[in-house]
Amino acid sequence: MSMKRKVAILGATGAVGQRYIQLLQEHPWFEISVLAASERSAGKKFKDACNWVMETDLPREIAEMQVANVDVASVEKAGDVDLVFSSLPGDLAGPVEAEFAAIYPVFSKASAHRMEKDVPLIIPEINPDHVELIKIQQRLRGWKGFISTDPNCSTIQMAITLKPLMQFDLRQVMVSTMQALSGAGYPGVPSLDIIDNVVPFISGEEDKMETEALKILGTYEGGAIRYADFKVSASCNRVNVKDGHLESIFVKLDQEPPLEQIEAAFEDFRGAPQLLKLPSAPAQPIIVRREKNRPQPRYDRDLGNGMSVVVGRIRTDSIMTFKYMCLGHNTVRGAAGGGILSAELYVVNGLA
Amino acid sequence: MSMKRKVAILGATGAVGQRYIQLLQEHPWFEISVLAASERSAGKKFKDACNWVMETDLPREIAEMQVANVDVASVEKAGDVDLVFSSLPGDLAGPVEAEFAAIYPVFSKASAHRMEKDVPLIIPEINPDHVELIKIQQRLRGWKGFISTDPNCSTIQMAITLKPLMQFDLRQVMVSTMQALSGAGYPGVPSLDIIDNVVPFISGEEDKMETEALKILGTYEGGAIRYADFKVSASCNRVNVKDGHLESIFVKLDQEPPLEQIEAAFEDFRGAPQLLKLPSAPAQPIIVRREKNRPQPRYDRDLGNGMSVVVGRIRTDSIMTFKYMCLGHNTVRGAAGGGILSAELYVVNGLA
Amino acid sequence: MSMKRKVAILGATGAVGQRYIQLLQEHPWFEISVLAASERSAGKKFKDACNWVMETDLPREIAEMQVANVDVASVEKAGDVDLVFSSLPGDLAGPVEAEFAAIYPVFSKASAHRMEKDVPLIIPEINPDHVELIKIQQRLRGWKGFISTDPNCSTIQMAITLKPLMQFDLRQVMVSTMQALSGAGYPGVPSLDIIDNVVPFISGEEDKMETEALKILGTYEGGAIRYADFKVSASCNRVNVKDGHLESIFVKLDQEPPLEQIEAAFEDFRGAPQLLKLPSAPAQPIIVRREKNRPQPRYDRDLGNGMSVVVGRIRTDSIMTFKYMCLGHNTVRGAAGGGILSAELYVVNGLA
Amino acid sequence: MSMKRKVAILGATGAVGQRYIQLLQEHPWFEISVLAASERSAGKKFKDACNWVMETDLPREIAEMQVANVDVASVEKAGDVDLVFSSLPGDLAGPVEAEFAAIYPVFSKASAHRMEKDVPLIIPEINPDHVELIKIQQRLRGWKGFISTDPNCSTIQMAITLKPLMQFDLRQVMVSTMQALSGAGYPGVPSLDIIDNVVPFISGEEDKMETEALKILGTYEGGAIRYADFKVSASCNRVNVKDGHLESIFVKLDQEPPLEQIEAAFEDFRGAPQLLKLPSAPAQPIIVRREKNRPQPRYDRDLGNGMSVVVGRIRTDSIMTFKYMCLGHNTVRGAAGGGILSAELYVVNGLA
Repeated sequence: MSMKRKVAILGATGAVGQRYIQLLQEHPWFEISVLAASERSAGKKFKDACNWVMETDLPREIAEMQVANVDVASVEKAGDVDLVFSSLPGDLAGPVEAEFAAIYPVFSKASAHRMEKDVPLIIPEINPDHVELIKIQQRLRGWKGFISTDPNCSTIQMAITLKPLMQFDLRQVMVSTMQALSGAGYPGVPSLDIIDNVVPFISGEEDKMETEALKILGTYEGGAIRYADFKVSASCNRVNVKDGHLESIFVKLDQEPPLEQIEAAFEDFRGAPQLLKLPSAPAQPIIVRREKNRPQPRYDRDLGNGMSVVVGRIRTDSIMTFKYMCLGHNTVRGAAGGGILSAELYVVNGLA
Repeated sequence: MSMKRKVAILGATGAVGQRYIQLLQEHPWFEISVLAASERSAGKKFKDACNWVMETDLPREIAEMQVANVDVASVEKAGDVDLVFSSLPGDLAGPVEAEFAAIYPVFSKASAHRMEKDVPLIIPEINPDHVELIKIQQRLRGWKGFISTDPNCSTIQMAITLKPLMQFDLRQVMVSTMQALSGAGYPGVPSLDIIDNVVPFISGEEDKMETEALKILGTYEGGAIRYADFKVSASCNRVNVKDGHLESIFVKLDQEPPLEQIEAAFEDFRGAPQLLKLPSAPAQPIIVRREKNRPQPRYDRDLGNGMSVVVGRIRTDSIMTFKYMCLGHNTVRGAAGGGILSAELYVVNGLA
Repeated sequence: MSMKRKVAILGATGAVGQRYIQLLQEHPWFEISVLAASERSAGKKFKDACNWVMETDLPREIAEMQVANVDVASVEKAGDVDLVFSSLPGDLAGPVEAEFAAIYPVFSKASAHRMEKDVPLIIPEINPDHVELIKIQQRLRGWKGFISTDPNCSTIQMAITLKPLMQFDLRQVMVSTMQALSGAGYPGVPSLDIIDNVVPFISGEEDKMETEALKILGTYEGGAIRYADFKVSASCNRVNVKDGHLESIFVKLDQEPPLEQIEAAFEDFRGAPQLLKLPSAPAQPIIVRREKNRPQPRYDRDLGNGMSVVVGRIRTDSIMTFKYMCLGHNTVRGAAGGGILSAELYVVNGLA
Repeated sequence: MSMKRKVAILGATGAVGQRYIQLLQEHPWFEISVLAASERSAGKKFKDACNWVMETDLPREIAEMQVANVDVASVEKAGDVDLVFSSLPGDLAGPVEAEFAAIYPVFSKASAHRMEKDVPLIIPEINPDHVELIKIQQRLRGWKGFISTDPNCSTIQMAITLKPLMQFDLRQVMVSTMQALSGAGYPGVPSLDIIDNVVPFISGEEDKMETEALKILGTYEGGAIRYADFKVSASCNRVNVKDGHLESIFVKLDQEPPLEQIEAAFEDFRGAPQLLKLPSAPAQPIIVRREKNRPQPRYDRDLGNGMSVVVGRIRTDSIMTFKYMCLGHNTVRGAAGGGILSAELYVVNGLA
């Protein structure tokens, strides 16, 4: 008999849902018990409900599973559940996740609940203490379970690199992104929109980068998050790359540490996942590449099994303090991998 | 008998050289008289020396012309010359352009002489009075001809949009570029480097954007250029787009005009080429797109026959004053088209 | 007062519908009177109903037109109609086109009616006499109008090149295609499906190429089409190209003419549109490129304003008789341009 | 002390050379001893001589190795050598490989010697007995070593699928390829040539496919290869895909087995590498995909660690007997992986 926690994936047929399935194969603590999706897919075999877009083959036993509808009754009927990963689309996520959270721990990749006061927005390397919020959440909402959210993909990788810069009194962050196609899900970006082109707009993305980072890097004080007090300004673009968001970041610090010290701060940064040796934790959250033309999405997105953020081209800046490039795998660290790491953090804390 | 000025193109077989050839077909004032290139091509028919990468067909009479070597004697032997367009590679451009400038007006797209004190760096809409520098140049160097230079392609489009912002007391410019493949010439970027990828480095490009803009937007005073006093910080990237550089620009102004006033300043901007009705001048140097997801390279690069710069997504900024996207056709406005427009300006001034 | 024929476009918001709009700007005989689309779009301004994907700007007066629903009553209420272009999706096309054909000449790009016995499948250069079928169609169906259909895009360009080969007793045609993204409409192919990839399957396409060609190149005899008696075998692939289908064609002839004679047959081929000087007719239906590496989609798709088919690499074959490459612009010659040319043929025949 | 065979790689800095390096990491029988390249690279550290284009990182100890010049004296000076892998460019390969073959077993990916009478052209699954030719070669040429060659990449994958079809009396093969960028090496295809494009020409490729296959599938009789007696006609195209050649293949057999029998013949095919359990042998040389739209390069090229050939869309053909799609990883099975597998075959035969 398996002692692994039984996992239900809500939104299992989508691109992020598929990545959850892929990453949970062989996971030491979790096993997939239920795949749920919207009415259109419910009742079908997973292989018929889903256009599998992972490069690895669809696992055979997953292919044959019947998709449950995304409501508690249907999911419970389909199998045992200990915890829930949700990658539902925004509009659906709000009420459905709340329904599940009344009973189960829900780890959500959706934006619906991220900015609510009693909902933690977790990057385990940065703010593991924010998990405390769920006690307040449970009390306020009368839930047995809870909702813990993961940030937007382009925010996650930026925030991870900002954490070690906080010690130098971070004040301002300007970022221009070049984001991968998989960030828009599947079918997502039409090929006619992106061939020989860049699309300088991603709905809601700039606002997310400008606000979520402040909550993530804020401090848990007296049962609430006090937002960090630096400012972020973002300009977001979609480019013709499959996976891996690349970001040009310009940073203003109150201190002016030499570049070597900044490099060291990036490379030496470790967080709770590394200390706790969580199964999905990369050995190094931030990898520094020293080649003059790196990081590059195709070459660097899989470092640390897609869980490391890769920086490079660290150089002084005549207006701000310094600038650098930052790359992360948007559907691993920026989505399913990040969600699993969060769940692992809750497990070791005895909360899930 | 044609009364058009006879033109020699140095570096005619390269990607920019080819664009010169394409744009000079049917030009009312100029006609191609000599095509020159390095030793490897000299002596061959143009069609055999060149891998023609323009989408329009190689004109028949150009195909059959014999390529001259890039020295004055060979060029003069090949045909009459009134003025010279140079798109030579950087290392070759320095001495060769000087040799020609002793006799002829040379309009150079190379970076070799751009930052020299007595060499004008011209964008006709911005600094038509800088052409006065050539009198000093001729006196100092004892030349009958002169060298006038065009800025780097990513700088040109940015600088055109900065000009109308000068009235609001421009202080700081942060720019992250997404530059097209054709900016690297031919063969240029290997396809294996750019498929499913972005390259966050272009040799020398950031430095050019940070310094050239100050000279271009500087003032001609007492026989010299006084550099503009704002600061530029650039981060340059190569993306998988054929033509059209796209730039995320963040701007700090001392004034805080409403966005409508900035939009109007962009749209109403006109310069010498428009007033003088130069043949290659676009009706509007800056076009503002109001759709939420424009400008885009594939859709907007050919506006104004590739000579207009296109801006969009003008919005306020929490750190600087406002931010916007800027697109220009890098081998038309940013190279051959810009060079021809410069030459037209000199012609109406009686200098070429 | 305009004497042009008033045109309604059914399926106007789709990629082919947009191409119709683009190509009908400035047409000497036709003017757009009504834009119709399915319920989802009906009632909206065209600019709000449509994601415009043409590189030329959406014409202003088109942008403001209100979209009618695709039924006769709604269309007639929206404006006067002399003839109808339909680019409706397959399932919708069947009944809707029939409703309109009871009253109006309908030129259909849909596959619904193509293979019906009394429906002409027209390529004006090949089978202008097939228009005679509409008299039988009108009699059988009791219609005042009629349906005339255009072939599948990949079939059109192949068939045009096969026509001049008929004289050498064509027996077998094997073709492997590399088809452009725009052939799948908009949004069409998801970018995640095609980046760094080829998709070796296009639903229904091989069957269309194998059967339609025989009807097109058949003969009109005694009120019916006798199919041509050669065989076609097709293998269809989608590649990462915006416009322009490229085809590897292997041909078996009973005769063995020298390659020069085949080249001449291609180049000298002219049909009714050229003789009648129809407004959309290219001067040369087939252009032969002699460079060793042409035709190429990006360089050759716009030849003859996208209405010429371009062949190259004509060479002998050890198994069949000879082989060649064939390129056509799939949304111009292969769709809207072909449809307009058909309508022009009917007009000069006094049938529309 | 390592008992592995010491390997020298000629042409180590090229794209195929790099793939050799990548695949030989952790190889149980071979270890890299010398990296050699042309004069331009000789004497430099490998990391400085080479633009590493593999997605896995350049191994540290390889990075620091000094590149030897590609002559026997320089290579021997650089390290011990038991056998040689050559991925030299064609012109250089001829004399250099001969120089090494006088002393060492040389496994060549170059085309220079492939079609010579006494030189085996090996695909271990197909013609392991052809290795016997080297005894004749050594006798004729007075060599202690020998040259064994690997076929052209697009030929290898096709030939592997043809082998199990021989039993049905194969007569004719028509193939149209869609070949990956990495097949042209590095820098290889300029990005400006392939963006939004297909190039329907690869120098020498069609001829190689049409002739090499006959030698590979020929029989070793009386000290010579008797060529197979079917015919091949090829049409070769370059598409915008990083790795993985895709081929549309039409086949004429004298027998007409049902498709199920053909599928079974593909799937059940095993050769010497499988029987001998060679380290680089895939479990299954040919994998059959049954989805209607597979194989696809991005999804299927890495099956069997890039050593399996993947077929799909097996269907009857109205002109030939049947048609199918065939995919192979062109730099693994089609180059370095194939070369290593050949060497492994010689080792177990006691020949290297």
